[in-house]
Amino acid sequence: MTDTTTDMAGKTAEGCEAAEILASARAYVDPELRRAIDTLPGSLRRVALYHFGWERADGTPASGHAGKAIRPALVLTAVRALGGEPALAVRAAAAVELVHNFTLLHDDVMDRDTTRRHRPTAWTVFGAADAILAGDAMQALAQRLLAEDPHPGASVAAARLAACVMELCAGQHTDCALEHRGPDEVTLDECLAMAEAKTGALLGCACALGAVYAGVGREEIDALDGFGREAGLAFQLIDDVIGIWGDPEHTGKPAGADLAVRKKSLPVVAALASGTPAAAELAELYGRPPGGTEGGAENAARAARAVESAGGRDWAQTHAADRMSRAMGQLARAVPDPEAAGGLLALAEFVTRRTH
Amino acid sequence: MTDTTTDMAGKTAEGCEAAEILASARAYVDPELRRAIDTLPGSLRRVALYHFGWERADGTPASGHAGKAIRPALVLTAVRALGGEPALAVRAAAAVELVHNFTLLHDDVMDRDTTRRHRPTAWTVFGAADAILAGDAMQALAQRLLAEDPHPGASVAAARLAACVMELCAGQHTDCALEHRGPDEVTLDECLAMAEAKTGALLGCACALGAVYAGVGREEIDALDGFGREAGLAFQLIDDVIGIWGDPEHTGKPAGADLAVRKKSLPVVAALASGTPAAAELAELYGRPPGGTEGGAENAARAARAVESAGGRDWAQTHAADRMSRAMGQLARAVPDPEAAGGLLALAEFVTRRTH
Repeated sequence: MTDTTTDMAGKTAEGCEAAEILASARAYVDPELRRAIDTLPGSLRRVALYHFGWERADGTPASGHAGKAIRPALVLTAVRALGGEPALAVRAAAAVELVHNFTLLHDDVMDRDTTRRHRPTAWTVFGAADAILAGDAMQALAQRLLAEDPHPGASVAAARLAACVMELCAGQHTDCALEHRGPDEVTLDECLAMAEAKTGALLGCACALGAVYAGVGREEIDALDGFGREAGLAFQLIDDVIGIWGDPEHTGKPAGADLAVRKKSLPVVAALASGTPAAAELAELYGRPPGGTEGGAENAARAARAVESAGGRDWAQTHAADRMSRAMGQLARAVPDPEAAGGLLALAEFVTRRTH
Repeated sequence: MTDTTTDMAGKTAEGCEAAEILASARAYVDPELRRAIDTLPGSLRRVALYHFGWERADGTPASGHAGKAIRPALVLTAVRALGGEPALAVRAAAAVELVHNFTLLHDDVMDRDTTRRHRPTAWTVFGAADAILAGDAMQALAQRLLAEDPHPGASVAAARLAACVMELCAGQHTDCALEHRGPDEVTLDECLAMAEAKTGALLGCACALGAVYAGVGREEIDALDGFGREAGLAFQLIDDVIGIWGDPEHTGKPAGADLAVRKKSLPVVAALASGTPAAAELAELYGRPPGGTEGGAENAARAARAVESAGGRDWAQTHAADRMSRAMGQLARAVPDPEAAGGLLALAEFVTRRTH
């Protein structure tokens, strides 16, 4: 890693830079996204507007809390890093954000998740059928934006985005399948592959689309895809660490929330695979029925200690650093000038910052 | 209508022609479709292969019974009718068939339908989550085929197909919504709009894509879209008539199956809107809880008589003929040479034949 990522002053500067990039991407992409969503058929537009936080369940306008928009920011920042014109890639950025949100809508239906971004999920408000249909229409809308985009890179971008959706679906399938297996029937390689498909693929695709819209060659496009994938995996590892040891005040969830629901997150699976006595204790705790019991919080705390003793926390943090280092390598391949690469670096650091 | 559509000899010849066109389209498109489906991630490929009838639930090969492939046949026949080269439109034909089947997968989940093409639906075999994911991946695959197609019309086709998916989703939403309303809360206009979105839109899009791949102008493209839409609506009206008065030996369903489940099909809604005494009787019968009771068959027979007395059957058949006549008008606009239009005419007659 470069100095900017390790000294505190640099971090603060990059934090500001990332926040500025994200805010600027929002300002660019939101109008395009709103315009696109306005072309959805009325009934499904309401579901989409609710999901993005732009409307309440009753259809009245809301201030909007549509997530960090990290993916559109990656598209636009990648274009800029490679000397392209971000303004010409706004549709591609909106398409990536639509794909991300279509998968969230469908994942929430499949996982029966009832809360997203501190609000009831769309399917709990509009029913599963309308959430599925709104997701389907949003995937179509994403491809329509690219198909109608006169930019010469639009069809390459459309093909990459479609391939990415297929990978996202495979990742979600594996995620559901792993949740139904016993704690000793899940390998770390499977979980890493699942995290790459579910989280890495779209972050990689966002960066790759930026490269496509900058008009660079296949090698740089693939390198930027690799950068996004590796950073995405680092992000997932950190997110999993926070899911166990995160401060409830910051996460908005009770301590050890992921353990209470027996989630097979990466630090847990690494711990289970360690062959240590703590792994055996963890397997025993994960074999018990999840949540609900009076000893739930105490069990979660015991599980957290077991993951830590078995080396799961250290492994996750080391592995996250390793992935970030690989991400930097890919970034340097695609964008050798460190100054030009600064924006992408700031975004990657921002999404994986929460460890520190 | 031309003579060929009204004299019996012509009908038989066209029946043969349609059967030949369908078989030839299958032979063209199936290899492309198989190749495309083979690029799906393994877990979801299995769901797709099962849905298309190419594999059994246990993954062993099956002979395949993937429907009539009317939509790919429309694409290829439209290309030929307008002087294009059908071999260059095979990907587009496969994309349309993928979209059709992705919507069937999702509709079956939403409607909780348990049988399709005489086999258990995919969601009953693989679970709702995998059926949703396989559908999502198939939509992406359809767009990927077009995005990777070097044909100059591919991006226009991709945009039209994406817009069509949005319309299909809106149609399915309306269908679900209407099923939950009382028999007196549904208008005929709403039902016609729903049928156009759910059935007409993709048949129109298939024809339009053929025109796009033939390289003709916007006016001909839109006229062929109109032809497919109108023929699609005629088909739906005839299908609804068969759902009430069809011969159980041919339909494979008990007589009056649609009435037993209180389906608000077009002849029923037309009857309900007639203001006749039979309409009042029908509304009363539709107000009773569906199926299950001992008098179910007798009630369905009474409802069928009421629909007929209220003019629902006549209306549907007249309206179907009217739609077919409009379809012919659009076809003549796009393809003035009757000989060149013969294949499309044969297909339109074939799908609406079942009345006779």
